Amino acid sequence: MARYFLEIAYDGTDFHGWQRQPNAITIQEEIESALSTLIRIKTPVMGCGRTDTGVHATQYFLHFDGEVQDIEMLIFKLNNMLPHSIGVKSGMKMDDKAHARFGATHRSYRYDLHVLKNPFLHQRSTIVFHEVNVDLMNQAAEMLVKTKDFASFCKAGTDVKTTLCDVTEARWEQDGTRFSFHISANRFLRNMVRAIVGTMLDVGKGKTSLEEFQEIIEAKDRSRAGKSANACGLYLTRVEYPFL
Amino acid sequence: MARYFLEIAYDGTDFHGWQRQPNAITIQEEIESALSTLIRIKTPVMGCGRTDTGVHATQYFLHFDGEVQDIEMLIFKLNNMLPHSIGVKSGMKMDDKAHARFGATHRSYRYDLHVLKNPFLHQRSTIVFHEVNVDLMNQAAEMLVKTKDFASFCKAGTDVKTTLCDVTEARWEQDGTRFSFHISANRFLRNMVRAIVGTMLDVGKGKTSLEEFQEIIEAKDRSRAGKSANACGLYLTRVEYPFL
Repeated sequence: MARYFLEIAYDGTDFHGWQRQPNAITIQEEIESALSTLIRIKTPVMGCGRTDTGVHATQYFLHFDGEVQDIEMLIFKLNNMLPHSIGVKSGMKMDDKAHARFGATHRSYRYDLHVLKNPFLHQRSTIVFHEVNVDLMNQAAEMLVKTKDFASFCKAGTDVKTTLCDVTEARWEQDGTRFSFHISANRFLRNMVRAIVGTMLDVGKGKTSLEEFQEIIEAKDRSRAGKSANACGLYLTRVEYPFL
Repeated sequence: MARYFLEIAYDGTDFHGWQRQPNAITIQEEIESALSTLIRIKTPVMGCGRTDTGVHATQYFLHFDGEVQDIEMLIFKLNNMLPHSIGVKSGMKMDDKAHARFGATHRSYRYDLHVLKNPFLHQRSTIVFHEVNVDLMNQAAEMLVKTKDFASFCKAGTDVKTTLCDVTEARWEQDGTRFSFHISANRFLRNMVRAIVGTMLDVGKGKTSLEEFQEIIEAKDRSRAGKSANACGLYLTRVEYPFL
């Protein structure tokens, strides 16, 4: 028995998020099912975090314990067995104590918007029927990097010990009619990126001023922030481990 | 009555190609149906060319004749009415003689391949289960730019007066595990890009030497070339008009 990490990517459109649950198809369940078939013993997997229904990942790590003769062959077979919406990118044997969830020290997300209908972005980016001012949104993003407590962007009723996060990067990029928000932190609260993006969009549309955005941050009250942005524009893009 | 051009894009996965036909859903039919509803008179449209089942377009032009009060409003309504797989990017009033098909003087295609399963490329790129040598494929591409007669890459039984094409660009680009072939010409024969890519892939896999590739070109015989590459990797990317 040894511990293995798998690096995967998934299109979350058809899944009820990462985490296994009754009566719904999830990414965890698909992987546990394929893996258990291939290594011929029930094999639970531990993911680096939960993602919500419809949220995507271009990089996601999980760990499992098992007997693997040839990790490259296992990856090849997993890719054949898993649906087209889940791809295994790499796999590696790790120290027995390496933990996909608790070992992660940094995560990055991207949120994609577009303002002109694009057939290739259906379920992969959120369409906005409004002009957005990306300079204003970038000024709001700068405020986030100076923020310590993200209570205003944490789903109400979430049971967490602290709402402090160390956000190291928050910026918008524009490419013609497409916009991407990049955010990195040591940890993220539940629904945090989508709540932040929804609130920033109000800034970009001129509904919320930068002063009001600052007040929302300082209120530490989720009810003050904007609506949560749709799941389909959100991607987990990077998970970092000190030992990887 | 005036002539209008529409610039559109489409994901061809769910369509039996561009051209209207009985008992199959096509892009032309979807657009004619939406346009006819919106301008309240049966409105046929003329596309810049045919694309096969499953082939995509990031840029495609069509023309129609009709009474349009506000072209931007028409585009907005068309985008609401058309399925998510077809997007209208822009529209413009043209000279009455401007012709979407016969007026086009240059076209460009892209063909996408990937060698590692990627959930975001399903039906958008062709997966190849083999290492490919992109340098060899680029040497083959250089031969294409020097070629005049593309009879070896023209679907057998096609009724064309000439198989001469003026290819102005043909090159491969690599981005990690993804490969894109870019080709531009004054005209393309039926199935030409897919036949070229299929044959180049044999070069990239080491099944066909560069000398043999040259012989295939010179044979002017479709049966000598490789298998046609899958439709899902092919994109019409640019159509040029001297008057646009």
